[in-house]
Amino acid sequence: MTAEEAIAFIKPGTTIGASGFTGSGYPKAVPLALAAKIKEEADSGRTFRVNLWTGASTGPELDGALAEVNGIEFRMPYQSDTHMRDRINRGEAHYFDYHLSHSTPLVKSGAMGPLHTAVIEVTAIKSDGRLVPSSSAGNNQAWLDAAEQVILEVNSWQNADLEGMHDFYTIAPPPNTQPIPIMKADDRIGSPYMTVDPSKVVAVVETHIPDRNAPFSDPGEVEMKIAANLLDFLSHEVKMGRMPENLFPLQSGVGNIANAVLCGLMDSPFENMTSYTEVIQDGMINLLKAGKLRMASATAFSLSPDMAKYINDHMHEFQDKMILRPQDVSNNPEVIRRLGCIAMNSLIETDIYGNVNSTHVMGSRVMNGIGGSGDFARSASISVFMTPSTAKGGAISAIVPQACHVDHGSQDVRVIVTEQGLADLRGLSPKQRAETIIRNCAHPDYRPALLDYYKRARDVSVGQHTPVILDEALSWHSRFVKAGSMRA
Amino acid sequence: MTAEEAIAFIKPGTTIGASGFTGSGYPKAVPLALAAKIKEEADSGRTFRVNLWTGASTGPELDGALAEVNGIEFRMPYQSDTHMRDRINRGEAHYFDYHLSHSTPLVKSGAMGPLHTAVIEVTAIKSDGRLVPSSSAGNNQAWLDAAEQVILEVNSWQNADLEGMHDFYTIAPPPNTQPIPIMKADDRIGSPYMTVDPSKVVAVVETHIPDRNAPFSDPGEVEMKIAANLLDFLSHEVKMGRMPENLFPLQSGVGNIANAVLCGLMDSPFENMTSYTEVIQDGMINLLKAGKLRMASATAFSLSPDMAKYINDHMHEFQDKMILRPQDVSNNPEVIRRLGCIAMNSLIETDIYGNVNSTHVMGSRVMNGIGGSGDFARSASISVFMTPSTAKGGAISAIVPQACHVDHGSQDVRVIVTEQGLADLRGLSPKQRAETIIRNCAHPDYRPALLDYYKRARDVSVGQHTPVILDEALSWHSRFVKAGSMRA
Repeated sequence: MTAEEAIAFIKPGTTIGASGFTGSGYPKAVPLALAAKIKEEADSGRTFRVNLWTGASTGPELDGALAEVNGIEFRMPYQSDTHMRDRINRGEAHYFDYHLSHSTPLVKSGAMGPLHTAVIEVTAIKSDGRLVPSSSAGNNQAWLDAAEQVILEVNSWQNADLEGMHDFYTIAPPPNTQPIPIMKADDRIGSPYMTVDPSKVVAVVETHIPDRNAPFSDPGEVEMKIAANLLDFLSHEVKMGRMPENLFPLQSGVGNIANAVLCGLMDSPFENMTSYTEVIQDGMINLLKAGKLRMASATAFSLSPDMAKYINDHMHEFQDKMILRPQDVSNNPEVIRRLGCIAMNSLIETDIYGNVNSTHVMGSRVMNGIGGSGDFARSASISVFMTPSTAKGGAISAIVPQACHVDHGSQDVRVIVTEQGLADLRGLSPKQRAETIIRNCAHPDYRPALLDYYKRARDVSVGQHTPVILDEALSWHSRFVKAGSMRA
Repeated sequence: MTAEEAIAFIKPGTTIGASGFTGSGYPKAVPLALAAKIKEEADSGRTFRVNLWTGASTGPELDGALAEVNGIEFRMPYQSDTHMRDRINRGEAHYFDYHLSHSTPLVKSGAMGPLHTAVIEVTAIKSDGRLVPSSSAGNNQAWLDAAEQVILEVNSWQNADLEGMHDFYTIAPPPNTQPIPIMKADDRIGSPYMTVDPSKVVAVVETHIPDRNAPFSDPGEVEMKIAANLLDFLSHEVKMGRMPENLFPLQSGVGNIANAVLCGLMDSPFENMTSYTEVIQDGMINLLKAGKLRMASATAFSLSPDMAKYINDHMHEFQDKMILRPQDVSNNPEVIRRLGCIAMNSLIETDIYGNVNSTHVMGSRVMNGIGGSGDFARSASISVFMTPSTAKGGAISAIVPQACHVDHGSQDVRVIVTEQGLADLRGLSPKQRAETIIRNCAHPDYRPALLDYYKRARDVSVGQHTPVILDEALSWHSRFVKAGSMRA
C-alpha cells in the first residue's frame, strides 16, 4: 500500500502511537503523507489534528512535518524538533514530558485514553509474522499491543543485521508485574522480535528512507574540561573503593558534553566497562571498537550521520556488544538501582542549592523535556549533572540564585560539574551545598554576585535552612529577559 | 551498664546511627544521658556535638533532647521535632533530607563517611545473640552492620509479642544487588531478627520507657471532604477498570488528612485491601480490626498514645497482619512499582502547574523533610497529593503561582485533592493542568487572583508552554512574609 492510501485509516482527533526514539526508527513515509493531507485540509479550511505519542524525540519527517502544518494537538513524552518546540512554545500544541519509563505504564493503565493507530517502522516482516525492529525499541511493542489498528512501515534502508540485536520483554502491569531478571547490562531476557496481532494490521507501507540524527560537533575546550573534571572524580571514587575498577554501568545523556565524557573514557584507565543507558551514541561506539566498553545496553541508536553510516556497514561486528530494549526496561528504576548505574546528564541551570532545571528556559519556554534524566538520576548509585558554567557568550549563568523551574530536586543531585570544577554534594546541608557549588562550579564573573546574594539571603530569610530572598530569587532571569544578560 | 557509663564510648565530632522511625523504637536513655553530658560540657565552655543519622523522625528523648542542648552538628535523613527544626532553621545545625530509601545505600557506599556508633533500641536479646527489634525497623540493621561500635538499649516497655513481626532483608550494594522477591504486601522474605557482630557491642543498657508519638486530632470537616473527594476518585478508577476492586496497595503519609482517608475507607465498598507503606497509623489498625485491610506492610508504627496502648495490649492478634521491613525495602522503588502502590501524600503548596513543595515554608524554612514521599510518588501507579486549599485561617493559599521550593516535579504529581475538589492531571499539558487545578482545587477566595495571574502570564511569557511572570511568580510568598497574608 502507498503511504497516501494508508493514511485513509487515520482520522482527525485520534491518537497515533509512533515508533522512534531520537532520530532512529521512526516512521517516515506515513507521517509525510499525513502532513500533506493535513495541509490540504487546512487549505480547504478544515482542521485535521492528531495526538502523537512516541518513544522520545523523532526525526523531521515525523515531528517536523506534522508540526510544520500544525497537525499536532497533544504530544508526549519527549520532543526536540525545532518546529514542534515552536508550536508548543507558541501555545499551539499541548505537550507533556513524562519520565520516559512512565509512558508505557501510563498508557497501559488506560489513563491516557485509547490509542487508535500504531505507526511502527520495522526492518522486515518474517514469514511467520514476527517483526524485525529497526534502529530503536522505545515504546514500539507497547503501541503495537495497545493500538486498535496498526500501520507498518517496512524500511529497506535499515540494516538487515539489526535482526537479533533487540531484546523485547513485556512488563505486565500491576498486580501481575514480576521482577525484571536483568542482573547485568549484558543480560538478554526476551525476544529479538516484536509481535503484532495480524488482524489489527490495516496497512503495510514499503519505504527506503534513512534515519536522521543531528551531527555532533567535536567537543570544545569547555566540554573537554567538564569531562576531565568528571573523570578525575570517577578515578577518585575507584581509589576510595566506592566504585569497582570497571566502574558501575554508565548512563549518559545525549549531546556534546556527554560525547566529550565518552571521548575522555577512551584515554582513561577504565577497562571492561558496560553501559546501561537510553541511547547508544558515537562515543560509545568508539569505546566498543576499542574494547574499553564490553556491552552497551540502550533503547535506541542516536548516532551522527557519519557514525550511522559506519555502523550500517559494520553492524554484524557489534551484534553481541549491543542490546536494544523497550524504554520501560532500559529506563526502569528497578534495574537502574540494582545495577547501580552512574547517571550523567546535562542541565540548563542549577540553583546554588543544587535544584536542577533540565527543561525550561526562563521558566516558561520548554526546550526538549525531562526525558530519561529523572529515571536515572533518582535511582542511580550516583547522579551527576554537567553544564558549562555560562551560556550565550556569558550572558547567562548556569548557576543561579533560584532555578526558575525544577525537574530534579536537590535530593537527586549528588554531583555538579562545570568546566570550573566539580561539587561533590553528598553529605552536605543546603548551605554547605551552596558554598561548594558557588566556589567550585560557578563562573568567576558570576561568583561574587552569587556569594553576595547568598550572604544577604542568610540575613533576611524566615528560615536559615535554605536561605532565599523571595523578591530577588528570580531577578536574574527577569534581568536576562529585559536586558539580554544576567549581569547586574 | 548505665546510660551514663555507655556514653563514655561516644566522642565529640563522631557520627551516631540511631534506631527509630517516627516516635517508635528510638533509643531513649542513652541520648538523654548524652544530652546531659553535652550540657555539662557546654557549661564548662567545651563544645560537644555529634552527627545524627536515624530512620526518620524520632521522639523527644533523642532529637528533642540533643537539639535542646545544641548537640547536633549534622542530621539526616528526616526530622519533625520542634527543637531540632528550630536549630536547623536558625542555622545552628546542618540537615539534609534524603529520600528515605536512599539513606542506607548512601551510607553503605561510603560517601557519607564512617559511622562510629550505632545506638539501637531492641525489645530483647535472644540467648544466641540475635536481636528482637522494637517498634520500628528503619535503618537499624544497616547501622548495626556499618557501625564501628554498637550500644544496645533493651527496652522492657516494648511488647514481647513484637517478636516475629519484622522481616529483615539486607539488600546487597551494587554490583551484587539481587531482585527483591516481594510479589505482594504479604510476602516475608527475610528474618524476624536483627543480627550484630558481638565484638562490636560496647554497651547494653536496660530501659523501660514508652515510645512517644503525637496524638492525632479527629478529622475535621475539611479533612473529611478531602478524603471523600479522593474516595470518589478511587471508586471511579475501579469502575473504569483501571484498578482492581480491592485497590492497589495503599501508601499513606502521616497526619490528619491521611487518617481521614483511612477513616473514609472504613465505610467504603473496598474489601481485602493491603497497604505497602512507610508507617502503620491509627486508621490502618482500625481497618485491620474491621477486616477491610488484609495486611499492613511498613517500616514502623506511628500510633497515637491511645492506639499504642491498645496495640500493646492486643499485639498477638495482629502478628499475621503486619510486617515491619527495613526502610530501603518498604520504600524501594522496585517493589513500589511492581505492586503499583497508590501513593497518597500531603503537601505544603503546589503551583498552578502541579509542581509540589512538601518541605519548605516561604522557600527557606524547612518543616520536616521530603521523607518517603518521593520514593512512593515517583514509582507508584498513581501519585496523589492532598492538602486543604488554604492555611493560617485563609492567609495562605496552598495553590500558588509558583512553588517557592519544589520537591516533586509535575511529572510525579498525577492527582491533587483539596476540600474544594480533585484535579486528575493525567494526559494534560501544563496549561490544561493549571486550568484544572485552579478550577477544581483552589479556594474560591484565591481563584480569581490565580486566574488573573495565569492569564497575564500567557500574555507576557517568553514561552507559552508553562506561562510565568518572573517578577510576580514568588510575590504571593513575599506578600505573606511582609503583610501576613497572600491576599492582595
